[in-house]
Amino acid sequence: MTAATGERATTALAHTIAREFGTPCAVVDLDRVDANIARLQARCDAAGIANRPHIKTHKSPEIARLQRQAGAAGITCQKLGEAEIFAEAGFRDILISYNLLGEEKIARLARLARRADPIASVDNPVAVEAAAEAARRAGRILPVVIECDTGRKRAGVETPAEAVEIARLIRDAGGLEMAGFLLYPPEGGVPVTQRFLDEATAGCRDLGLPAPRIVSTGGTPNLADLGRIAGTTEHRAGTYVFNDRMMVAAGAATLADCALTVVATVVSRGGPTRGILDAGSKTLSSDTGKLDGFGLILEHPEARIHAFAEEHGFLDLSACAAPPQVGDVVRVIPNHVCVVVNLQNRLVATRGGRVVGEIPVAARGRIS
Amino acid sequence: MTAATGERATTALAHTIAREFGTPCAVVDLDRVDANIARLQARCDAAGIANRPHIKTHKSPEIARLQRQAGAAGITCQKLGEAEIFAEAGFRDILISYNLLGEEKIARLARLARRADPIASVDNPVAVEAAAEAARRAGRILPVVIECDTGRKRAGVETPAEAVEIARLIRDAGGLEMAGFLLYPPEGGVPVTQRFLDEATAGCRDLGLPAPRIVSTGGTPNLADLGRIAGTTEHRAGTYVFNDRMMVAAGAATLADCALTVVATVVSRGGPTRGILDAGSKTLSSDTGKLDGFGLILEHPEARIHAFAEEHGFLDLSACAAPPQVGDVVRVIPNHVCVVVNLQNRLVATRGGRVVGEIPVAARGRIS
Repeated sequence: MTAATGERATTALAHTIAREFGTPCAVVDLDRVDANIARLQARCDAAGIANRPHIKTHKSPEIARLQRQAGAAGITCQKLGEAEIFAEAGFRDILISYNLLGEEKIARLARLARRADPIASVDNPVAVEAAAEAARRAGRILPVVIECDTGRKRAGVETPAEAVEIARLIRDAGGLEMAGFLLYPPEGGVPVTQRFLDEATAGCRDLGLPAPRIVSTGGTPNLADLGRIAGTTEHRAGTYVFNDRMMVAAGAATLADCALTVVATVVSRGGPTRGILDAGSKTLSSDTGKLDGFGLILEHPEARIHAFAEEHGFLDLSACAAPPQVGDVVRVIPNHVCVVVNLQNRLVATRGGRVVGEIPVAARGRIS
Repeated sequence: MTAATGERATTALAHTIAREFGTPCAVVDLDRVDANIARLQARCDAAGIANRPHIKTHKSPEIARLQRQAGAAGITCQKLGEAEIFAEAGFRDILISYNLLGEEKIARLARLARRADPIASVDNPVAVEAAAEAARRAGRILPVVIECDTGRKRAGVETPAEAVEIARLIRDAGGLEMAGFLLYPPEGGVPVTQRFLDEATAGCRDLGLPAPRIVSTGGTPNLADLGRIAGTTEHRAGTYVFNDRMMVAAGAATLADCALTVVATVVSRGGPTRGILDAGSKTLSSDTGKLDGFGLILEHPEARIHAFAEEHGFLDLSACAAPPQVGDVVRVIPNHVCVVVNLQNRLVATRGGRVVGEIPVAARGRIS
């Protein structure tokens, strides 16, 4: 099949999907998903590191099963509500990379710990106490990793000394296992992260704690550094499963690796240089990912999605030699696929150029 | 009750909600909703204009029933999928302020027209043909309004001459009633919109069409202009029902009119001037509404939500004399409430300072 034939075939498929499912419609190419999954798994295998994919990107047990079948060891969830959905679907080894606090979360974490094997993450004493209380209620030892911030200025303790202090609290809380460290190294942050990890590990040894059994790194954009931090036992990548315009911009993927497109229709024009898609911020999200424009239209790469209303995507067509017309069906690669998936109730799945089913976004909206 | 007592009471309520429902949690104060609904209805009544609220803001038949009980005549939906949900819930008079195109939409619009009384909107010949085909399949006359753009550069024909040309197509299509015009006047756009409307109406008269029975204006930020365009028969406001930080910034509401808050917990700190909320872009949306920061924390108005991860809100606390601590529960007024509601599975409803139930966001995610 030539490139042109392939292009015609995918355009024809987009039209079929538009007719059958309506637009806008998020479509997942499972052949590309398989390839993305296999590629990361091979990299983890080659590095001797376990693969613990982050499900925030797809929020779907069906996709997670593909990851597991390919060799993933456990999953990562960002919210307890996601972990509950995946536990119901039969997943047991679930790292929750998020501080869980407060009575309601403690009660739910305890319930989860009775039917699955969650690993909690903490970066502060309140979260340590909450984990310990959940462990008591569940009547079991709860493994805990310490989230460390080595430069991203997101969550996590900011110094090895703080990490060691948290480790001491975990050791003394009762019911908790100090299982290791949760890292999300910044781009170019291998040396600083290595120093942090080594110092924190040494401090924990001084507390009489065993060597960490989990040293978990994260991220898709920084996959080039996979395994370069000595002591790493596992990696949590999320976006790699679908990829998006941000990953292409970061050099972590090519357009051919992007497995999710939003099929949309041009529903209005308004002058020779304007156009309007039926996909706005409630479909493609206002998350620009710091890129220019809100997505890439594969059929009209020179068109720019320059603004959104809630259900409209506003196109600047001034650079288009052959601008799209009202009724035209196009495919959009979103800037940030994780937030786009969370806006969908279902994904339409294709394989071999044919629709093979619908995948519910089972954990969509599980923000708590 | 003094202001301080009131403040303590609402803070206590937020803590009760956090314990019972967990955070983040979108909470709707139905007393404020009632007041917002009554205020707009009174303004519409005083102007002699029908009130056709846009349900995109709440996506909930329960809230729409409150609007109807207060006097609303019909509703507005942006997507066909919303209209279907509301038709199932017993609403009949539904204006869909959106071009509907393509076989899948035609089939659904025809089905909808058999069990409800939709009014279609069009701004181009393809949408006229689609409406006519839906009318044929439904075996009934379908009323159609022409969307006109009088300066916002969103959807809509851009000149009265184009409107008249669309009216001619509607007249000649068969099965359609040319019912009138759909306007969304820009701020300060009364004179230009009036001229547009008058010219388009005159042109339609020349085509032998009766005077428009629907001249629908829209918007909450421009409510100050309500009824100032002669010939207006109805208004479509959406955001007024909850209000948000954008409406406060636009002078269309006060903070006391904001009926929806997101109750969130501080889950991490990281240095004296940083803090992290458990509400990120998957809860509060990346839609800034062109405001500084991603929401207003009522308990710490001097804190700035300066960035989001998907499940984290990053706080700059450098201006806080008494910064929030890990575990603190706070209430956030979102920048743009419509997109926030669309991210929730349910809203927790309060009345008289007590939780009275949960409201499903029934049409959430109905993007098609």
